[in-house]
Amino acid sequence: MRSMSSGATAPAGTVRRPGDRYPSRMAAEPSITPRLDPVVHGQADDGPLSAAELAFFDQNGYLDFQSLLPPQELQPCLAELDRLRADESIRTAPEAVIEPDSHALRSIFAVHQRQSALAALCAHPRLVAIARQLLGSDVYIHQSRINYKGGFQGREFYWHSDFETWHVEDGMPAMRAVSCSVSLTPNTPHNGPLMLVPGSHRHFVACVGETPQDHYKASLRRQEVGVPDEASLAQLIGDFGLVAPIGPAGSVTFFDCNVMHGSNSNITSAPRSNVFTVYNSVDNRLEAPFCGLQPRPNFIAEREDFRPASSIVEARRSA
Amino acid sequence: MRSMSSGATAPAGTVRRPGDRYPSRMAAEPSITPRLDPVVHGQADDGPLSAAELAFFDQNGYLDFQSLLPPQELQPCLAELDRLRADESIRTAPEAVIEPDSHALRSIFAVHQRQSALAALCAHPRLVAIARQLLGSDVYIHQSRINYKGGFQGREFYWHSDFETWHVEDGMPAMRAVSCSVSLTPNTPHNGPLMLVPGSHRHFVACVGETPQDHYKASLRRQEVGVPDEASLAQLIGDFGLVAPIGPAGSVTFFDCNVMHGSNSNITSAPRSNVFTVYNSVDNRLEAPFCGLQPRPNFIAEREDFRPASSIVEARRSA
Repeated sequence: MRSMSSGATAPAGTVRRPGDRYPSRMAAEPSITPRLDPVVHGQADDGPLSAAELAFFDQNGYLDFQSLLPPQELQPCLAELDRLRADESIRTAPEAVIEPDSHALRSIFAVHQRQSALAALCAHPRLVAIARQLLGSDVYIHQSRINYKGGFQGREFYWHSDFETWHVEDGMPAMRAVSCSVSLTPNTPHNGPLMLVPGSHRHFVACVGETPQDHYKASLRRQEVGVPDEASLAQLIGDFGLVAPIGPAGSVTFFDCNVMHGSNSNITSAPRSNVFTVYNSVDNRLEAPFCGLQPRPNFIAEREDFRPASSIVEARRSA
Repeated sequence: MRSMSSGATAPAGTVRRPGDRYPSRMAAEPSITPRLDPVVHGQADDGPLSAAELAFFDQNGYLDFQSLLPPQELQPCLAELDRLRADESIRTAPEAVIEPDSHALRSIFAVHQRQSALAALCAHPRLVAIARQLLGSDVYIHQSRINYKGGFQGREFYWHSDFETWHVEDGMPAMRAVSCSVSLTPNTPHNGPLMLVPGSHRHFVACVGETPQDHYKASLRRQEVGVPDEASLAQLIGDFGLVAPIGPAGSVTFFDCNVMHGSNSNITSAPRSNVFTVYNSVDNRLEAPFCGLQPRPNFIAEREDFRPASSIVEARRSA
């Protein structure tokens, strides 16, 4: 690894907030500093994952399961996705993101807030149980989205640590959140599968560049601020390599909020449609954004509804 | 397959030239018509490929060889590529193509015209011998290029048949040319390897959209005319699937001029740098472009130098 700096020096015009343990977008140069939080917060006794699985996640920052969910459970989600894609009004909703080079649908956020099959998937008891165990507490849904990545038109998602953005732009204080990607369609080597740098979650890459107001409106299409520098990426990939879990529909990948990840474009005819749910510990609720700007909207970063994800399902079932 | 139309109806303002057996960009709707030329023009007795290899190429439209060339033969080419990348004057040369979203180098054309290691590679006796056998005649170099596809910044090459463009914009009369891709760097599943639709070379996909003047200046960065429609692509990929040959540096893929191919972007740190040489039969020299416009420059489509590729090497060796 490159020598690690112990922090960033703020140039004039930027202020590091007291208690900001992961300053980013403040210094003139990028830096890589060690992670200051545990990776696995729970115990093997707490839930479905074995001690070996917890150790794998601790070391690599991800865990993937082939065919964790049976295809018939996903059928209603695919049908809902088809309805959403066919609904022109969705495309102008704030929750929808359109591809940068075309009018193709790229993402829809906050799918867990719909009374729907996708919402039920986000709060699926098997997924929530794993998140609870990894984070060692009750969890709420910080964010959910479907990344459609359609055939022919699906563009890349450049390398990023989710936590960098969630910390700077949303005020997430600590690395105690986990993402869960459920594949609704097969993820093949060719249709732009999720790629991860295993082990990168133990290092925080501070980025360069001040956050503009309303940054999310552009960054969700193509990110240009909060982007790790190529030298840091080359170092992480050189040290750790990369993995790209593939599998049939129903495969599931959990990954730490700070693992470096991204995906290539998809010119094949087969969409790579994955539902991402971000579970955050109820003990890691958002504060004011560390960049000093207004928070992003709730449909990107939940700031009000901290009900445990498990209780959402129970409430719906008893309703 | 969809029902095949026997030809395109020209709308007002476009004229199908007599002798144009593959009209494209003339009709209002795309069409798929059968190939009218043989795929393999030579015999097993003619050269290095076995009857089984010729049959494979005939059926699939490509042949790939793991480690056909030893890495030490490629070292001078890599060194030359590094020099070219470091040379700012190259980037403003007409032969250079820059990525659409950045200032990164995408391609350099006519590398065979440099007195260099890359030129020697384009005329490599082992490669020329295979091309001669496939095309059943002497061959000349119609085009050569290096597609750098650098780490982080390498963008996709969308699906296309080379022949469609070479016919319409360059006046190549028949399907009697073959491309050869030599990997200077490892081609992995993750760094945007060449993808091919095996069997698609037996079908000609006529595209929609009139060719603009000086089209190549934009199309080499990101093509928007001469692009196959999604329905035709979905049909071909659905019928034939796709393959993505990977391998270490020195791997070689030959593919027919009409096979549908493309590649995804490359956000990994590892460049995917391949040298492409297009060998055309000396009996298939260019005519006037079938679109009726001025020909593209010689560095994209050779119109003057029809010396057999093998003789170029001999001339250099004896010089």
